[in-house]
Amino acid sequence: MGEFDLIKRFFVREQGQTGVVLGIGDDCAVLAPTPGMQWLVSTDMLVEGRHFLSTVAPERLGHKALAVNLSDLAACGATPRAFTLALALPRADASWLTGFSKGLFALADAHGIHLVGGDTTQGPLNISITVMGEAPAGAALLRSGAKPGDDVYVSGSLGDARLALEVFRGSISLPGEQFAQVRAAMECPQPRVALGQALRGVASSAADVSDGLIGDLGHILQRSAVGASLEVDLLPCSAVLAAQPLALKRECGLAGGDDYELVFTAAPAQRAAVQGAAEQSATPVIRIGRIEAAAGLRLLDAEGQVLSHQFSSFDHFKS
Amino acid sequence: MGEFDLIKRFFVREQGQTGVVLGIGDDCAVLAPTPGMQWLVSTDMLVEGRHFLSTVAPERLGHKALAVNLSDLAACGATPRAFTLALALPRADASWLTGFSKGLFALADAHGIHLVGGDTTQGPLNISITVMGEAPAGAALLRSGAKPGDDVYVSGSLGDARLALEVFRGSISLPGEQFAQVRAAMECPQPRVALGQALRGVASSAADVSDGLIGDLGHILQRSAVGASLEVDLLPCSAVLAAQPLALKRECGLAGGDDYELVFTAAPAQRAAVQGAAEQSATPVIRIGRIEAAAGLRLLDAEGQVLSHQFSSFDHFKS
Repeated sequence: MGEFDLIKRFFVREQGQTGVVLGIGDDCAVLAPTPGMQWLVSTDMLVEGRHFLSTVAPERLGHKALAVNLSDLAACGATPRAFTLALALPRADASWLTGFSKGLFALADAHGIHLVGGDTTQGPLNISITVMGEAPAGAALLRSGAKPGDDVYVSGSLGDARLALEVFRGSISLPGEQFAQVRAAMECPQPRVALGQALRGVASSAADVSDGLIGDLGHILQRSAVGASLEVDLLPCSAVLAAQPLALKRECGLAGGDDYELVFTAAPAQRAAVQGAAEQSATPVIRIGRIEAAAGLRLLDAEGQVLSHQFSSFDHFKS
Repeated sequence: MGEFDLIKRFFVREQGQTGVVLGIGDDCAVLAPTPGMQWLVSTDMLVEGRHFLSTVAPERLGHKALAVNLSDLAACGATPRAFTLALALPRADASWLTGFSKGLFALADAHGIHLVGGDTTQGPLNISITVMGEAPAGAALLRSGAKPGDDVYVSGSLGDARLALEVFRGSISLPGEQFAQVRAAMECPQPRVALGQALRGVASSAADVSDGLIGDLGHILQRSAVGASLEVDLLPCSAVLAAQPLALKRECGLAGGDDYELVFTAAPAQRAAVQGAAEQSATPVIRIGRIEAAAGLRLLDAEGQVLSHQFSSFDHFKS
């Protein structure tokens, strides 16, 4: 199977997709931006051993590779439009490609985003996706809009992906069914695209939680030049994580990584609107803290006592 | 040096670039498409040993990684606007990153294209760039517009990059100065962006020559459902390649790869306009054949005799 056969067999689909003038098959794709909309762009690269384990099923990997990119569009409240895929593969393995493309396109179809171009080459497994989406001019959610007094929210639940990773690392063990559940959280994250769009005009800032809540909320605090306090024991988590020892539970929730939830802020006057956005998008949302003028992040326990913390966000160039 | 320090130190530059509402630093970049323009997108991934050798200087690699992507915009006649960079690196090497980013930004500045987002991670060296450009609605040059009777043209000269590769492979040797010249062709290709834009409304089809002339002209023939004949000895080449044995010269020119020239077609009535586009863009262009209704590609020698050919275009999944 050669490069062009591979592309044709696994990645070329029907034309005639919304806004796509020309998809795969030329030097460039040709897209028609919707008048009045701004264009949002993000890129994520996935490397074996850093972003996924060799044990992941190809179908789940195809899902995850797109999901982590859609999560960036979600954080900005964008409507997904198109993506490109650059793929380095050790070899052209039809079985692997069948699974990978199945998982990829299932998620793409669920979000109405079209694969419009790409590149395939031989090399150590590497998946690089660039997503493009749209939002009305000036309406994109940014990290820079949080204001003192705003509430801090997070969607879904945190920490299961990290818990699964700890099982793979051998540092803890879980019963089979519980492991399957947290493994699915790690391998099949659901990007909060509908919530992000529903929060346009409601949230004052947003980011996706990919490197851990502390790190990603930290980006909001830095870009907004504010601080925050969080009520640590309000962090939403699954029943599986809730049953773990407190220290592990907090570590996973605060600094777990790979959550792909949204952390966002909104003025107290928007509480009903936030609730409405959560219902409209069928996404659980919980208020976990507030933005303050004083720089830094303060973690409070259930009694309102400040916790000292050494949690650090995931960094690809630190061990 | 952590991931965010690395990005800040080597890849974040001033904001306020044309059309860029928000660059690096949020979950997505925010871009403002020009009203009435279509958006052109292309992705290329570069892997060590496939697209470049470990001997390449980082500055040249930074140049080449963007150049091969700009070449796709050139082939469509697009005006470059923005790009994203996803980079997997074995380690955060400041010296390497200094050279790489210098070469990358020198070429970006020369073409007025802005780095708006990206991703860095640890892993086997891999460079994945997505470029975005604009062209007036319906004006992009495509592979599908060639018509019987059209002339076939190619820009610049072909085959030097392949000749350099043969030196690295040890199959031929060249005097130092000649090697330096063909090595520069391989490592520092100049994308024909100005020519591509000048050919809007003039050329009937275009493609960039990245996998070898036969392969890339073959894409035009396939997408346009036509054939062509080429006068092989008209192929433009450097004095270094011209001095090589005929068989090697033809192999390099017809199936060399890594040329990043444009192959394009235009009606005979456009000959003066093609010449004008060449002059306007200060890019040599030569007519090398014609499009015919009969499928297939016929190679003719200087006496008009048909050459049998076994040249094959580069394929990343064939040896």
